[in-house]
Amino acid sequence: MALGEFELIERFFSAAGTSPFVSLGVGDDAAILSLPDGHSLHVSTDTMVAGAHYSPDMSAEDIAYRAVMAAASDLAAMGAAPLGMLLSLTLPEADGAWIARFAEGLRAAATDTGLALVGGDTTRGPATIGITVMGSAPTGSPLLRSGARVGDRVCVSGFTGDAAAGLAILEGKIHLSAAAENYLVKRFTRPAARLALGQSLRGLASAAIDISDGLMADAGHLARASGVAIVIDRSALPQSAALREVIDERQRAVWMLAGGDDYELLFTLPANAVLPEGCTEVGRVTEGSGVSCDGIETPGGYDHFA
Amino acid sequence: MALGEFELIERFFSAAGTSPFVSLGVGDDAAILSLPDGHSLHVSTDTMVAGAHYSPDMSAEDIAYRAVMAAASDLAAMGAAPLGMLLSLTLPEADGAWIARFAEGLRAAATDTGLALVGGDTTRGPATIGITVMGSAPTGSPLLRSGARVGDRVCVSGFTGDAAAGLAILEGKIHLSAAAENYLVKRFTRPAARLALGQSLRGLASAAIDISDGLMADAGHLARASGVAIVIDRSALPQSAALREVIDERQRAVWMLAGGDDYELLFTLPANAVLPEGCTEVGRVTEGSGVSCDGIETPGGYDHFA
Repeated sequence: MALGEFELIERFFSAAGTSPFVSLGVGDDAAILSLPDGHSLHVSTDTMVAGAHYSPDMSAEDIAYRAVMAAASDLAAMGAAPLGMLLSLTLPEADGAWIARFAEGLRAAATDTGLALVGGDTTRGPATIGITVMGSAPTGSPLLRSGARVGDRVCVSGFTGDAAAGLAILEGKIHLSAAAENYLVKRFTRPAARLALGQSLRGLASAAIDISDGLMADAGHLARASGVAIVIDRSALPQSAALREVIDERQRAVWMLAGGDDYELLFTLPANAVLPEGCTEVGRVTEGSGVSCDGIETPGGYDHFA
Repeated sequence: MALGEFELIERFFSAAGTSPFVSLGVGDDAAILSLPDGHSLHVSTDTMVAGAHYSPDMSAEDIAYRAVMAAASDLAAMGAAPLGMLLSLTLPEADGAWIARFAEGLRAAATDTGLALVGGDTTRGPATIGITVMGSAPTGSPLLRSGARVGDRVCVSGFTGDAAAGLAILEGKIHLSAAAENYLVKRFTRPAARLALGQSLRGLASAAIDISDGLMADAGHLARASGVAIVIDRSALPQSAALREVIDERQRAVWMLAGGDDYELLFTLPANAVLPEGCTEVGRVTEGSGVSCDGIETPGGYDHFA
């Protein structure tokens, strides 16, 4: 891009959030962040390619907002408190109006998550969005995927399947009441990373993961990392009122079990731990390997209906 | 990419370097790093798009090695000690042999820089390489672009212009002795981020930046950030023996002043500070703005010959 366009972008992005942990933001060779005493850095990066991970038809605000939340969700899954983020934005051309709207969505997500934009890189090329998120958590006893133990209860936050239904609405595949459509589409375009819940799970949950690939698939990642099996009780799955408007019960089950992009947390609780508000117990940890639901196992189960 | 390919990639990349600061590497939702007591996090990200920032004809080892060094150079410029890095690799297809060679180059750069690979993301799409580097430096008095003062001496490490000459050799534009060609091509394909020098400049240099856009252009960034002018003495510029084989003196000057990709450091020293070994004083900081060399000012000077 021309230098002028770069300066335009820098101007748009330089004000996207501040934080007491940011010593130096956009503008030098690197950003400088401080961590609270006795805390460790948690860092993760997510890349979204136009056409594969997001539709170029989505609004630029939503594309930016969703990209930040998807990345922030990895911090939530580890119980980390937000510090800051980096944006790597590759665009085929510098469309000032699009960039302004993208920056607006980024700013909204920075505010909603507490992740100040501290740096990044803007290049010309095929449209790709990279978000690197940084968080902190007390050093020692981190919340990992690998801590689930036989006998633990398996829990999820909020509702799953909403985002998959929202995408189906956007693609014109299903039609529901205006209120339900509005809610479900927002669940896809404006997901909320469960950062506060994740932090509250520190020292409480034995393991956690965020649901980005789908409940069964992500439960599988957690089970594999922990060396256990997970059994999901389909009848226990929480369904949003909007999703219940979908008449086809089987379709609902597929979305709840295999739909991705919800960015809820799936976690395991020891028998005596109190279930956090807004969360539902949906299964249990058993000996063995893999994930099953009503006798159907992944992979090749609910997975391939998605 | 298919799951099998992802697993292949994870296997290749999971062993790329370790570090006492890495509590948790590749495999969970985020990596966990610890910082030395009293230190702050320095973080920077660089994106390289195939065709724009690197030639797909380059060897996969060199592409990876150069991408890491280009990113690490931003840490060097701020005097930060290496902690770890993240890789965001987007590829149109999973070519196992290419990925194995890329991983080899990445591993070599991880070893040479001390930047352990702690995580990343692999996606299918147009070939793009994103490297996020993390380093640490003592909290307080960071080495910035903005600290240059009138009267300071302007210095560079090593030689500039070598990488631009190396690229011209790769493109068949010039021909030199085999030894000179080998040296100059390596300076382009296997640059060395000046991490040790950068750390030695803490508390010594008043300002620093790495030379990625070219000496005049990067001096311009430093001058602007510091609110000063910089005057470069063309006759003082250090020339490598290999570069001196280029007969066209004007071409040499253009490469030394405007050639990018050298990843040397440009820094300013107060009058009484000792010049580090392997560095050369090439100019001075004066009142005003902009950068000039023998009366020619950027932009529109040496810049547009590049």
